[in-house]
Amino acid sequence: MIHDPTSPPTTAHWTVDQPLGDVPAAVDTELVRFFADRHADYDSIDPVVADGVDVLELFVTGGGKRLRPLFAWAGARAALSGGGGSLDPATGPADLLRAVGSLEFIQACALIHDDIIDRSDTRRGRPTTHRWFEAFHRDHGWYGDAAGYGESQAILIGDLAFAWADDMFMDSGVDAAALARAREPWRRMRSEVIAGQMLDIALENSGSEDPTMSQKVNTYKTAAYTVERPLHLGATLGGADAATVDLLRTAGRDIGIAFQLKDDHLGVFGDPAVTGKAAGDDLRSGKRTWLVMCALASADRSDPATAARLRAGIGTVTSDAEVDDLRQIIVDSGAAEQNSARVRELTDHAVATLRSGHLDTGIVDEIVTVADHLTDRRS
Amino acid sequence: MIHDPTSPPTTAHWTVDQPLGDVPAAVDTELVRFFADRHADYDSIDPVVADGVDVLELFVTGGGKRLRPLFAWAGARAALSGGGGSLDPATGPADLLRAVGSLEFIQACALIHDDIIDRSDTRRGRPTTHRWFEAFHRDHGWYGDAAGYGESQAILIGDLAFAWADDMFMDSGVDAAALARAREPWRRMRSEVIAGQMLDIALENSGSEDPTMSQKVNTYKTAAYTVERPLHLGATLGGADAATVDLLRTAGRDIGIAFQLKDDHLGVFGDPAVTGKAAGDDLRSGKRTWLVMCALASADRSDPATAARLRAGIGTVTSDAEVDDLRQIIVDSGAAEQNSARVRELTDHAVATLRSGHLDTGIVDEIVTVADHLTDRRS
Repeated sequence: MIHDPTSPPTTAHWTVDQPLGDVPAAVDTELVRFFADRHADYDSIDPVVADGVDVLELFVTGGGKRLRPLFAWAGARAALSGGGGSLDPATGPADLLRAVGSLEFIQACALIHDDIIDRSDTRRGRPTTHRWFEAFHRDHGWYGDAAGYGESQAILIGDLAFAWADDMFMDSGVDAAALARAREPWRRMRSEVIAGQMLDIALENSGSEDPTMSQKVNTYKTAAYTVERPLHLGATLGGADAATVDLLRTAGRDIGIAFQLKDDHLGVFGDPAVTGKAAGDDLRSGKRTWLVMCALASADRSDPATAARLRAGIGTVTSDAEVDDLRQIIVDSGAAEQNSARVRELTDHAVATLRSGHLDTGIVDEIVTVADHLTDRRS
Repeated sequence: MIHDPTSPPTTAHWTVDQPLGDVPAAVDTELVRFFADRHADYDSIDPVVADGVDVLELFVTGGGKRLRPLFAWAGARAALSGGGGSLDPATGPADLLRAVGSLEFIQACALIHDDIIDRSDTRRGRPTTHRWFEAFHRDHGWYGDAAGYGESQAILIGDLAFAWADDMFMDSGVDAAALARAREPWRRMRSEVIAGQMLDIALENSGSEDPTMSQKVNTYKTAAYTVERPLHLGATLGGADAATVDLLRTAGRDIGIAFQLKDDHLGVFGDPAVTGKAAGDDLRSGKRTWLVMCALASADRSDPATAARLRAGIGTVTSDAEVDDLRQIIVDSGAAEQNSARVRELTDHAVATLRSGHLDTGIVDEIVTVADHLTDRRS
């Protein structure tokens, strides 16, 4: 429990008009409540299980931008603000909040399993889940392979998070008809993010230089999962009409891809003081982004020797000077500007889409503000 | 697709009275249909995704006793055969079949992730999922760590199976009220099997000799997941009254634990020609079963030197002579008879429980036949 039990946090005053900026803190509150129930249900089985629930709670409540709940809330707000929707009287605003908050558990599963896949040691300044269990094994002088034990328990903790996403969503209190409407985006979102992750791993391991592979990863792993389907989910929960669903999905896909491309730009050109990562981190790790693939393709056409230097450097450079050299190649290839132009184009298109329907200006302006922030369109 | 598309299998003639023995083949048919839909939805994303769906299809449709669907079907039959239940006219027999068949996807996730955890190379005579992807990586001359790639993709394929369990269940066609009634066993079953797996891994790695730890693993990983909750799930789908749910859960827990203890007995004393495993396989692998823990505790009291020989031998023996020696210690300790007596006691108790209610003789006799078969009570 991370909150003082003498003054329990509450979302009792939550309303359907609540601004997007209020979503993250309110979701935190609901997640803490959810964990209190789960501790009551499962801690008594055994300390091993209670520890596992603790580890998952610290992970889920210990940070994160709550982007997916925020977009899902935006979808519900849009449905109810000119999007043709209405709420069943049986569904209260806090029920809707719980339903969108459940997306954080899908994200927890994705990150915990991703950290195993990427062999990451830390996340948000703390040991990753598999490293936590590995250290537990070592600290207790247990038998066998501590690293294998850590990965095994982390696989299971990720599975638990995936199951609990579903539990929090289905038991949110939202009426059955709204949950039934939301089945399609819920189903699609989960399969799409897994498909996107499968593609991403295949892309990294195959050494593909095909920009369309990178676009598919961006479409499924980021855009569908982070923006398009959360908006879709919220819209169906709020009973939006088909035109509003289409509009939100189109805008969401564009915002999501722009967000990923902007993130890829920061991975190469970002300021370490802002990103919290080493300068040119993506170049050091060899991440195969659309930006890098476009640079390779362009350099191949104009200057094969430079292309060879870029190709050899990606994933192998270590010094700042080497990073600067690759950065310059990417700029000179035109790919950096191509990437930035695409971010602007996609975001502009998304904004135009959002403004093309009958949605109230208030909710559209709020979504545009978030999109601008994520894609840095105004900077 | 494993069936000839010119004569598609069908469950159109499935009825609510269908015998338990008919369930496995009918579930196979529904799983094949489910995969046809998923191929249509996801193959077009990329060959990487299509391959992943193929791998999962081969795994799910390629064998298995379908025990969990069978018990869930038994629960539904019991609900409708004196258990106080009735079916909404909107729910057809094939809808119910699909709902119980979805449990095979939970099992697929559990086995695929278990195979990673146990570092198993084969299952049912074929490469495990992570080994399949590892070989794919190697065959294609990809970059990086083939084994790591295999594990990564297998984690994701397991996640996909877990998501699809839910999809198949929720989209089964069963009416919303029945699905809402089934939420509790559905929720509990998934969390309990994961908790049981966490306990199992902790037990193996800690070297615990506490028989209560082993009992907890049997309770959650086997009994709840394989028998109690499937019966519970089916009973709620069929609208069983509370007394019937209690009766089925009690009997299911007993049958499930007896089944595990019987399996543990076979793991030590079973005939390789029947079990398909090496003689004394559990002694060679060092599995910490209730049987072994009881033998250790008993030998510690009566003959510390023999206890030390057993303790040192578990997980380290390789020859048949060594296995025979450990077997004799386990027999002499009284633990083998204690284990067998417990199997008989639990199964007898389950049968008495099943006959104590108002369920029709027909469905009770069918469940008893399955229980006898699983626990070998009559042999």
